Amino acid sequence: MITIPRTEEENKRVREAQRISILEAAKNIFARKGWSTTITDIASAASVSPGLIYHYFVNKEAIFCELLGQTIQSDLDIFQQLMQSGDTAAQRLEMLISSMLKFRQDQIKQFGITVQAAKETSSSGNELEIMRRIFKNLKNNDSKAKDLQELMMKRVQTVHEIVLQLIVEGQKNGEFASDPPPKLALMIFQSIQGLTTLALDKPEEYEQHYPYTDIIMRMLYS
Amino acid sequence: MITIPRTEEENKRVREAQRISILEAAKNIFARKGWSTTITDIASAASVSPGLIYHYFVNKEAIFCELLGQTIQSDLDIFQQLMQSGDTAAQRLEMLISSMLKFRQDQIKQFGITVQAAKETSSSGNELEIMRRIFKNLKNNDSKAKDLQELMMKRVQTVHEIVLQLIVEGQKNGEFASDPPPKLALMIFQSIQGLTTLALDKPEEYEQHYPYTDIIMRMLYS
Repeated sequence: MITIPRTEEENKRVREAQRISILEAAKNIFARKGWSTTITDIASAASVSPGLIYHYFVNKEAIFCELLGQTIQSDLDIFQQLMQSGDTAAQRLEMLISSMLKFRQDQIKQFGITVQAAKETSSSGNELEIMRRIFKNLKNNDSKAKDLQELMMKRVQTVHEIVLQLIVEGQKNGEFASDPPPKLALMIFQSIQGLTTLALDKPEEYEQHYPYTDIIMRMLYS
Repeated sequence: MITIPRTEEENKRVREAQRISILEAAKNIFARKGWSTTITDIASAASVSPGLIYHYFVNKEAIFCELLGQTIQSDLDIFQQLMQSGDTAAQRLEMLISSMLKFRQDQIKQFGITVQAAKETSSSGNELEIMRRIFKNLKNNDSKAKDLQELMMKRVQTVHEIVLQLIVEGQKNGEFASDPPPKLALMIFQSIQGLTTLALDKPEEYEQHYPYTDIIMRMLYS
């Protein structure tokens, strides 16, 4: 049998497919096992050797960085689509609040931050605080971690801008109460912050009463 | 001139009046200068010598313990009156939420916890967390501090019970939405928690948008 050597183009495609399948497997296993996930776990889930994983990624932190970056980028795309959709301000704000709660919940789950929080007897839970803890976990200060940090800052900033914009729009349409928009936005963010603290401190209680979007939204109606 | 020696009864009255006037002066100066208040400040405000202050109190921590204890006891009395008043559940809940926000704000002000919070880069702000910081500041583990701790725990517990009770009552009267009462109570406490975090981290922003009770109350209406 004659084996035809793969072209550089084909090689690149194979490598890219392998990389994606490793990331996919890692995503599932991180979601299930949280931060205790090892390279061996990922290798076994992806049906490849640990050596092959190290061929593509320096360590599990690098894999996590990439996955989180993908999630944030996809969220940013969704936010943009959201703003161009024909839904009412209330409907779009509802989706945004749900997405914020879900994002934080995912981060908490994936990092097992609950355990850490319990140890520190600190119970803070805002988005930047979660970021701080993530980067403490990542422990690598290289350019990729910096890119990720910037991306997360961009996410926070974008969410703040959109929430304010939607409140203003909803007030114009008579959907929302006429309190100062920054005050309404603040109430949304601080109640989400309070809920994140709960998710960190008492995850069972948080899960028990989930979801929270409807009740948060009521603050906007007079 | 003949001076008639004071009876033991009269002596007791004089001492009690002096003690009360020292506490009154301390209350004002603590509210103004916060935790940096000294015994000399209190003495000067009460127009007595520092020596006389030490006759009645071991240190400023002891004075603070007593003042905080008085505040909490008076709050507990007010809560009891509140439950016996003829106001609607919504009106009483509104008063309770305002009192919770005010209590936390006062504690934060009096302890200058903001500065401390900034130093620790921790931004947690629930009632128990504030208590923890207060007792760290008090640094005395004697029986009075223990009494105070119990009184604060009682305050937290009483507030939780009353909030739940008022929600149930308000639902029966058709005042509130029909979500599970523990969930509505949770949303109230977590939004107050989020606002306390803001008061700790960004006191100017918190002050700027104060008050918050009306918007919190809206979560209860469907």
